[in-house]
Amino acid sequence: MTQQQYQQCIDACLECMNACNVCYISSLKEYDLAMLRDCIRLNRECADICAFAAQAMTRGSDFIGEICELCVKACEACAAECGKHEHDHCQACAEACRRCAEACRLMAAVAK
Amino acid sequence: MTQQQYQQCIDACLECMNACNVCYISSLKEYDLAMLRDCIRLNRECADICAFAAQAMTRGSDFIGEICELCVKACEACAAECGKHEHDHCQACAEACRRCAEACRLMAAVAK
Amino acid sequence: MTQQQYQQCIDACLECMNACNVCYISSLKEYDLAMLRDCIRLNRECADICAFAAQAMTRGSDFIGEICELCVKACEACAAECGKHEHDHCQACAEACRRCAEACRLMAAVAK
Amino acid sequence: MTQQQYQQCIDACLECMNACNVCYISSLKEYDLAMLRDCIRLNRECADICAFAAQAMTRGSDFIGEICELCVKACEACAAECGKHEHDHCQACAEACRRCAEACRLMAAVAK
Repeated sequence: MTQQQYQQCIDACLECMNACNVCYISSLKEYDLAMLRDCIRLNRECADICAFAAQAMTRGSDFIGEICELCVKACEACAAECGKHEHDHCQACAEACRRCAEACRLMAAVAK
Repeated sequence: MTQQQYQQCIDACLECMNACNVCYISSLKEYDLAMLRDCIRLNRECADICAFAAQAMTRGSDFIGEICELCVKACEACAAECGKHEHDHCQACAEACRRCAEACRLMAAVAK
Repeated sequence: MTQQQYQQCIDACLECMNACNVCYISSLKEYDLAMLRDCIRLNRECADICAFAAQAMTRGSDFIGEICELCVKACEACAAECGKHEHDHCQACAEACRRCAEACRLMAAVAK
Repeated sequence: MTQQQYQQCIDACLECMNACNVCYISSLKEYDLAMLRDCIRLNRECADICAFAAQAMTRGSDFIGEICELCVKACEACAAECGKHEHDHCQACAEACRRCAEACRLMAAVAK
């Protein structure tokens, strides 16, 4: 694992955290709020897990493999839910989640 | 500041985190979801700040005074919003927020 | 999974977070600091993961199984390291870690 | 407050979190560990507060002013301590802390 690979995964997690939180606050303002319950819930979940993963990588955690595997699952679940909705913030979030899942999958494979 | 006073404030923060998160997930399932937008947002905010404050106290942070002052503001805002709603989870949350605000106000006064 | 089982696991995580952070700040003050490098590092790691797990359970996360599995690994690693040292705070931490690992193992088995 | 100003402050917090955690793990490996006790403690403190601040900004927290004021204090304390040590990681951390304190001071002035 090179320093560059670490940095790419950290960046993907931080971008995903940001996209999830933007989608979270935007969804809470939408008219069709009732359709976005799972989206809001998974946005927070995924943002918190991505933030945790990013910091774990910067502090050289012994558990990066496990944390990145967890992050893959959260990102995939959030991408699947946000991908159902046509709001721009949902689509942008789904896209960031897919990129982050890919980066974390790679990291988990190397770190364990 | 005695060890007992610390423990009381830590416990108040953890109970408030729990009540806020219970209110958060319960609100996301309610029929009158649209009226609970601010409640949901402040639940998460307050839960995260309480969790942060509790852990800061257990690790003997140098910034307990400032963190507890922040926690007072978050708890007061969440109590004010949740107090407007008649759902049991909102009322229970408002009550936990008020107790936590009181404990944190005392801690902030001593810690700074 | 009953509400009581959840609460027992949340409590075990919060007690472990507390014991890890007490061991962390105590270790940083010890004379034989150089022998406690891994202890300090794993204390922080385990405290952060336990705090994350406790909050994830209170917000009804979809990923409680995975998060509790991660917590088992962190607790086992921290217990193994702290168990090597005779300081009271290390022994107390190792004990809290073992209890938390047991509670999280049970939770992970049911939640997945 | 423009979106660009937010982004600059978020980036400063994330870079500071990273520098603090790099300094933290590097300090724990140093020969002169005993001189770095406060450095290690403040590194963790500052990293955790910066991470919290960055995520609070991405989720549009109502408490950005207070959180950024807290971040200023943590960054100043960490910069003062790390600035005393000649290790490259300490100097780099002190520099990142000063930049983050400046960005957060600006944000706090506007947000409150």
